[in-house]
Amino acid sequence: MPGPTSHDWERVSDWMGTLADLAGAAGLLGWDRETLMPPGGAEGRARQMGTLAALRHREVVRTDIGDALGELAARDDLDDDARGMLRLATRERDRALQVPEALVREISEACSRCVSAWADARAADDFAAYAGPLGLVVALKRREAEAIAVGEEPYDALLDEFEPGARAADLEPVFADLRARLTPLVAAASERPPVELPPREWSAQGQMAIAHEIARLVGFDESSGVIAQSAHPFTGSPHRGDVRFTTRLMPDSPIGSISAVLHELGHALYEQGFPAEVVRTPLYDAPSLGAHESQSRFWENQIGHTLAFWEQIEPAMRRLFPEAMSGIDAGLLHRAARVVEPSLIRVEADEVTYNLHVVLRFQIELALIRDDLQVADLPGAFADGMQELLGIRPPTDALGAMQDIHWADGLFGYFPTYTLGNLYAAQLAEVAEAELGGLERAVAEGRFAEILTFMRERVHRHGARLPTRELMRRATGRELGSDALIAHLERSYTSPG
Amino acid sequence: MPGPTSHDWERVSDWMGTLADLAGAAGLLGWDRETLMPPGGAEGRARQMGTLAALRHREVVRTDIGDALGELAARDDLDDDARGMLRLATRERDRALQVPEALVREISEACSRCVSAWADARAADDFAAYAGPLGLVVALKRREAEAIAVGEEPYDALLDEFEPGARAADLEPVFADLRARLTPLVAAASERPPVELPPREWSAQGQMAIAHEIARLVGFDESSGVIAQSAHPFTGSPHRGDVRFTTRLMPDSPIGSISAVLHELGHALYEQGFPAEVVRTPLYDAPSLGAHESQSRFWENQIGHTLAFWEQIEPAMRRLFPEAMSGIDAGLLHRAARVVEPSLIRVEADEVTYNLHVVLRFQIELALIRDDLQVADLPGAFADGMQELLGIRPPTDALGAMQDIHWADGLFGYFPTYTLGNLYAAQLAEVAEAELGGLERAVAEGRFAEILTFMRERVHRHGARLPTRELMRRATGRELGSDALIAHLERSYTSPG
Repeated sequence: MPGPTSHDWERVSDWMGTLADLAGAAGLLGWDRETLMPPGGAEGRARQMGTLAALRHREVVRTDIGDALGELAARDDLDDDARGMLRLATRERDRALQVPEALVREISEACSRCVSAWADARAADDFAAYAGPLGLVVALKRREAEAIAVGEEPYDALLDEFEPGARAADLEPVFADLRARLTPLVAAASERPPVELPPREWSAQGQMAIAHEIARLVGFDESSGVIAQSAHPFTGSPHRGDVRFTTRLMPDSPIGSISAVLHELGHALYEQGFPAEVVRTPLYDAPSLGAHESQSRFWENQIGHTLAFWEQIEPAMRRLFPEAMSGIDAGLLHRAARVVEPSLIRVEADEVTYNLHVVLRFQIELALIRDDLQVADLPGAFADGMQELLGIRPPTDALGAMQDIHWADGLFGYFPTYTLGNLYAAQLAEVAEAELGGLERAVAEGRFAEILTFMRERVHRHGARLPTRELMRRATGRELGSDALIAHLERSYTSPG
Repeated sequence: MPGPTSHDWERVSDWMGTLADLAGAAGLLGWDRETLMPPGGAEGRARQMGTLAALRHREVVRTDIGDALGELAARDDLDDDARGMLRLATRERDRALQVPEALVREISEACSRCVSAWADARAADDFAAYAGPLGLVVALKRREAEAIAVGEEPYDALLDEFEPGARAADLEPVFADLRARLTPLVAAASERPPVELPPREWSAQGQMAIAHEIARLVGFDESSGVIAQSAHPFTGSPHRGDVRFTTRLMPDSPIGSISAVLHELGHALYEQGFPAEVVRTPLYDAPSLGAHESQSRFWENQIGHTLAFWEQIEPAMRRLFPEAMSGIDAGLLHRAARVVEPSLIRVEADEVTYNLHVVLRFQIELALIRDDLQVADLPGAFADGMQELLGIRPPTDALGAMQDIHWADGLFGYFPTYTLGNLYAAQLAEVAEAELGGLERAVAEGRFAEILTFMRERVHRHGARLPTRELMRRATGRELGSDALIAHLERSYTSPG
């Protein structure tokens, strides 16, 4: 126990444990929904998850906890971890208390309706049918942000939910710089000769087996983990000792599945590395989505895009796909994994163009919340932005402004964390490069345990003790910026092959 | 909504929904623990399930609900369903309130410790190491029973948890009669020539596939259901629209797996047939474990022991096990599924001897709670009982009084529900026999939909509206008794073949 024993501390400690357990239980219900639940369970599961969320909210705002937190805040004999826990727990509690319950319900219902409207409107490519519900969500999220009143402007309060401490004004110059430096890179990288695997059949069984092989290779502990399959890959953990991720299986190429495995393994290794001594407290977590994404992107793009990685798994690939692999070697797989081409859909974008998709969404959602852009003008702004940033124009709104679920679901401030993850991943890789005598060489020599130890030391073992920017400052000795990512992309994509 | 709208009703209705959702969520955590959770998750899961149980208990005893229930109880404008819900909800609440929290915690801890002691003692065949912890559990459960004060004697309060309305004094003559009539039957059935399948390998894949085939055949809706695998088969449902069961896979015979599938399908069909109009209330349930078991035993023993059933699945068996099935036909499978032999282990016992295992346990646990038997004398009483009832004596206590987990876990009053299920199943089959023009003929003609409709009408659609005895009285026109079961066993096991 990190703090001195007392009735208040025990009460708060139990409370934090209950909140962690409830969040984990809800996570497992979600995992099951995506991996196993039959279609008939949709309505019942939605309601059940709603009940758990409501119970958790009631726990968060429990009156007696406010008193105990107040008593503890006045104490001067708490250690750093105890103070960290109280800070994060109080932060969540304050956010919950500052938004009136009526508004919470309004937002929840508006988002629910907007997600349905979005699904229908996207299917029919009818933005007009989506504009009304989305307008309401934007207006309500702005009211929520004003109630929370964190940062310099409403958008900050929304961003702060996913990336505590981040502010729009700090991100804008970073993203503008990134944008300016990416544009020429996209042009150069797109000129490289196209690479395609010959048409083959890649068995589902083989793809699941290679997922397990890669997991073992990089140090994922399957005695405390599960690997499964779902339409959209994701990682979750109901509680310590049980970290799960899924991969997607696509019969005509193994690349998408292996990239997904590496990405989710990054998240999963992070979760397995959280500090045991603060389990069932808010410190047993990543400090932000950007920090979490730094781990997935590190494995997906920094490790997964080395030739050495594909050489490492080539023997297993030959064993698991004896027919499909004929005439294919690590070099070809490596090149196929790194095709760059401006495309319409963010989630299918390559490593070079990806961040431009995010830059566009950041600009647009910032303008929406600032009231500088009206929902009616969103499709045009989105298409113009795609034209400007990537040189292609979505032929429909379904392939443009309506491609993501995030805004419909009220998730403003979420998109930038993807790019923050890419920036931090590149900065971490730069340090690992120096420290391990070359990252590609470490991979070639199979020193995955060293890579994992590096990340455990620099990132995982700290849990949520430090805000992300501070955590990364200490881990890399750098301020957040695009130098490392741009250097990585230049190295990878402006040399031939 | 079954009752008139009012603030009190809304509050109680929400409360019942929350309790149902929490129970379902805990059920899913348990399902996942048995089917997917990695070993490292054991501790975290136990704690998380503890948290959910504690939260649910806190919900059950919420003060404001007591007031609302009181207001509603005084109303005379509630319909039958509303009154039924309130009756069952109040019953659970009263049970929870009558047992002091300190005693609840004491029992929970004592059972936890006793289960651990039991596992160790069983492995070491050392009853003495188990006697102390078990003695404490018995004493605490007796105190709990006295606090609940339902029925004529402490045992009734424990039995009432699993079989509401049942009383020891009512069951004793039924079980005595059953015992007297079973003993000669066992002797006769054991004399039949032994039947064994030739040694073959039955693939796990084939066993899972036949589970799906049988599920489809009998009318299980897989669009609202899941079938998986676990060490011990079980059925659960996190909420309406998602009913799950597992089967066990054993490579050297398909009989155990198919019996398990039929048994669990009985439970699962029941859960899929609960009345939609009372979802998320206490009426959306079986009235008792005995009622639930009547459904599993009906499919396992009444349908699964007809020759016609094996003839129905023979083509699928040939398709799924082309090699293993060579030289094996429906007749042989049918005979192999009905081997009778007195044996030591209850869960492996055949249909004829099974109830004698239960009769023995009922006698013993009744004597323990009545203080007519001391824990120190349990092994001897158990071995003597086995000798007397089944003519075999357990060579060790591990194979005798320590074979089941139930008592260690404080589950006194649970065993008799297994036999109640068998009795009701036979009574239901007798009525179905008359109504469907012969049950074996209905199966032979593939009229499974008619069988299911019969059960939906008589049992499933009533949910927990009626106490089990009343439900079964209406469904069968009979009082609880052993005539139907004995007649079924005589028909099945005293004719040759």
